[in-house]
Amino acid sequence: MKILIIGGNGTIGNKVTTELKKRHEVVVAGRKSGDVNVDLASEGSIEKMFQDVPNLDAVISIAGATKWGNFEDLTEEDFYISIRNKLMGQVNLVRIGQRYLKDNGSFTLTTGILGEDPVKGSVGASMVNGGIHSFVIATARELKRGLRINVVAPGLVEDAAERQGHLFPGHLPVTMKRTVSGYLRSVEGYVTGEVIRLY
Amino acid sequence: MKILIIGGNGTIGNKVTTELKKRHEVVVAGRKSGDVNVDLASEGSIEKMFQDVPNLDAVISIAGATKWGNFEDLTEEDFYISIRNKLMGQVNLVRIGQRYLKDNGSFTLTTGILGEDPVKGSVGASMVNGGIHSFVIATARELKRGLRINVVAPGLVEDAAERQGHLFPGHLPVTMKRTVSGYLRSVEGYVTGEVIRLY
Repeated sequence: MKILIIGGNGTIGNKVTTELKKRHEVVVAGRKSGDVNVDLASEGSIEKMFQDVPNLDAVISIAGATKWGNFEDLTEEDFYISIRNKLMGQVNLVRIGQRYLKDNGSFTLTTGILGEDPVKGSVGASMVNGGIHSFVIATARELKRGLRINVVAPGLVEDAAERQGHLFPGHLPVTMKRTVSGYLRSVEGYVTGEVIRLY
Repeated sequence: MKILIIGGNGTIGNKVTTELKKRHEVVVAGRKSGDVNVDLASEGSIEKMFQDVPNLDAVISIAGATKWGNFEDLTEEDFYISIRNKLMGQVNLVRIGQRYLKDNGSFTLTTGILGEDPVKGSVGASMVNGGIHSFVIATARELKRGLRINVVAPGLVEDAAERQGHLFPGHLPVTMKRTVSGYLRSVEGYVTGEVIRLY
């Protein structure tokens, strides 16, 4: 398969890229690094990426910023930062990508545990995670040409535990092996419309 | 209790208003009708409403437009119509209202079955419903002064079945009595952070 991984140089992306490269052609996209550059907040940038990397069998997104903060401090614009980036960035990726992927291709998005099990300061991130889950469930039933879509929702991952663990009291980190398995289930499996919970 | 119902003249709102008026002081807000006018898409309009109707114990929102359409036809702007109205309209209501409600007051938002059980054309509506569910779960844990928040998620309601039934094949309408019960559970009960599923 020919697979595009957006955020393939990130904490999770690194491990997913390494595993998939063992048996597939992998192109890594990132905002500033990777084989090709893309800004998920821009429709035009996404369109250009699909034109520059044709004949894709799978697209994986492990990207999208969110704005954290205590609920009483969050402004309307703070919510829109999460919406424009993580939510609509991934929605636009599928909206535009549905015209470019090969028949029976797959989209794999990324959210996280916070949609169902929030932590202090995560309201904006939780909201967009929940939105993406429902988006995936609904979109899976409407995609044409055998296209599939799933979303991987990891808990706090092992490789981020040192940096983010203090935000997730009582969370046992998910191993990177299990994290990668979620992406394999979506890309190499045959499921669609699944929220692949890794927690 | 003094209760503000946004959308209190709508299909569901009508029945909720009638029931709550039996034992509470009810103020109905609507975009063009009601005791007070509010445009949920405008922060300023929400702020003015809370200033005009002080000392509230509860706010109920049964409002917020969404844009329907087949996924392959939906534009980025179509998604943003649903985001600005139903999603961020209700988020802003809570964001701003947290400063105005009396201690131990409650917010009750409204979504629907489509976040978990979509129908053809509902991708935008499904997405914002899922976002609101996660928003409510997360926000409940951060609200101060004993404030509570819940969301009622009705299936196709009886009074809308004639008009909308064709969009929901195989859905058995939810009685208006059961629909109203969801709002009573939130407003008169003591729960918080609940997605009150009526399906």
